[in-house]
Amino acid sequence: MQERLDSIRSLFPDHGADAALITFLPNIRWTCGFTGSNGLLIVLRDTAHFVTDGRYAEQVSREVAGATVHIAPRGLVDFASGAALLAGATRVIVQSDHLTLDLFDQLQEGLKGLEWVPVAGLLQNIVAVKTSDEVGAIRRAQAVTDAVFEDILAFIAPRMTEHELAAEIVYQHLRRGASAMSFEPIVASGPNGALPHARPTSRALEVGDLVVLDMGCFVDGYASDMTRTVAIGTPEDEAVRVYDIVLDAHLRALEAAHAGMTGKMLDAIAREVISEGGYGPHFAHSLGHGVGLQIHEWPSVSFRTEDVLPEGAVITIEPGIYLAGRFGVRIEDMALLGPTSAESLANSPKQLIRL
Amino acid sequence: MQERLDSIRSLFPDHGADAALITFLPNIRWTCGFTGSNGLLIVLRDTAHFVTDGRYAEQVSREVAGATVHIAPRGLVDFASGAALLAGATRVIVQSDHLTLDLFDQLQEGLKGLEWVPVAGLLQNIVAVKTSDEVGAIRRAQAVTDAVFEDILAFIAPRMTEHELAAEIVYQHLRRGASAMSFEPIVASGPNGALPHARPTSRALEVGDLVVLDMGCFVDGYASDMTRTVAIGTPEDEAVRVYDIVLDAHLRALEAAHAGMTGKMLDAIAREVISEGGYGPHFAHSLGHGVGLQIHEWPSVSFRTEDVLPEGAVITIEPGIYLAGRFGVRIEDMALLGPTSAESLANSPKQLIRL
Repeated sequence: MQERLDSIRSLFPDHGADAALITFLPNIRWTCGFTGSNGLLIVLRDTAHFVTDGRYAEQVSREVAGATVHIAPRGLVDFASGAALLAGATRVIVQSDHLTLDLFDQLQEGLKGLEWVPVAGLLQNIVAVKTSDEVGAIRRAQAVTDAVFEDILAFIAPRMTEHELAAEIVYQHLRRGASAMSFEPIVASGPNGALPHARPTSRALEVGDLVVLDMGCFVDGYASDMTRTVAIGTPEDEAVRVYDIVLDAHLRALEAAHAGMTGKMLDAIAREVISEGGYGPHFAHSLGHGVGLQIHEWPSVSFRTEDVLPEGAVITIEPGIYLAGRFGVRIEDMALLGPTSAESLANSPKQLIRL
Repeated sequence: MQERLDSIRSLFPDHGADAALITFLPNIRWTCGFTGSNGLLIVLRDTAHFVTDGRYAEQVSREVAGATVHIAPRGLVDFASGAALLAGATRVIVQSDHLTLDLFDQLQEGLKGLEWVPVAGLLQNIVAVKTSDEVGAIRRAQAVTDAVFEDILAFIAPRMTEHELAAEIVYQHLRRGASAMSFEPIVASGPNGALPHARPTSRALEVGDLVVLDMGCFVDGYASDMTRTVAIGTPEDEAVRVYDIVLDAHLRALEAAHAGMTGKMLDAIAREVISEGGYGPHFAHSLGHGVGLQIHEWPSVSFRTEDVLPEGAVITIEPGIYLAGRFGVRIEDMALLGPTSAESLANSPKQLIRL
């Protein structure tokens, strides 16, 4: 973890700072290993302090490395102030996108005499680049999701409700050792599939439906994320055509993806396939997003972003076509970006499966 | 929903304000019904505006009442600024505990000429008082949890792992119509029970274990929360004694609970029973917390808080005793506070169950 503390310290000069206060929990976990829900990480030039509350007294001794651990009997800022944990610092970076006005007030009141340097997206570029251990955890999470997908193909049947299928998806992930789902699974059948962010309903699956299945879990803190669209029986002709276009868009983007291109460039490759197919206006969301300790993290893979995709990032590639009132198709893998290509981390089949 | 908008407006005079900008999603849901993950609610004296993004275009038409709905093509604040949604306002309340420095900067940049009034805990006292519809939803969520508890009693057996049991608890909740769990269930057996916030592990249940089961779900947006501790076979004598003390503490607090007392007073009733039993230092957390659209909300029922518990609030009553390296016991119901008494919302048995 010393390396990660040093990567935070390497940002000090850019901001004329000599300390950083990390308040965003996924960043705290990334830096020092803490998995609980309340903590402050203070990074100074030569030392680091982690402050949490009494509920985590035992847990921190197992989890936290690289920082001196403190258990605060009351508020964390009060404690940091009383114990002078920022002694020696003069200009302190804070995470402006993960700090409330209230907590900032507490800092300004409790730790007087310091200058504060609010920075947005402080660690996002560093966190995006995964170590082989991190990729290993993502692979383990995806392996659970792949196994669940295979199993539920045998389980899906007409007259089953979206709720029932979603419950089974969750159950199978947890049974296989996922600590939790990385998001509530989407099971969107027939016309519900036309809502990209549909929630499972009591609608029963019908012969002829396409069913969008978007699912993922956490293993060792890291997320998986995969979408497949399957057919119950034989779908209408246009649904098959749309499926083929989405699959083509997905595969071409996966084929073209590599570090060094912008999110916008990669998004455009999939978007062009869908536009040429005649469904441009029906792909209304971005192509993808980074995945790691959070299910959605930087970089966005979007027509809106000029950010360059870094080597070692894991992103999703998830084009879709949504026809209101009729059906939707989305196909999604996570991909690990290398210098000249990308590796899909999913092993589930992509040809249209008719159940 | 007009009533809820008016209750926000009723706070304007206290702060010399003529508008409020609501950024905390559970408060947005409470006020205007929106269940998505991105939105801003602007409340003016006579009108209200709700802004979200294109993903929710269809959803808002079904969900949102009482406010004019706007779909922002880019950032929500940009849109609010361009569309002059705060026209006529001069002093605007913002939620200082639910507003990042970044978003506040955007507001100050995008909506110049306004004065901002940061307020912490803006709606907590109002949201705490539940309508009969809200209590109905909490009862439905708890009915699912009660039914799951009954079912899993037949399922629990030695050699089953905590992970397996937790997966079953989640599955049974979702099968019975819960939209999601309100938190990841705690299944803490034997020595793991001594960690109040234990996560399920691969430890197999053993004869003689106590097992702490803490679970809850969401139905129609509202949470349930219940803990029971059961025995596998016959536990050691001290475990039975500790169980009886915790049960006594729980029942006496439930018996004494009513609106108008402070959280500290109610906490003290349970704490005294445990102290008299000789286990005072082993009850290291608060007695309970409010429950509603969030699993944890105001009021805290704690030795630290002098806040008066309001009529119509739903709180948890969850004393526990934790003996490190040995076992833990916790018993928890949600209770609806009336003027002179409280009603437990749980229907699961509380005598020690030996499986």
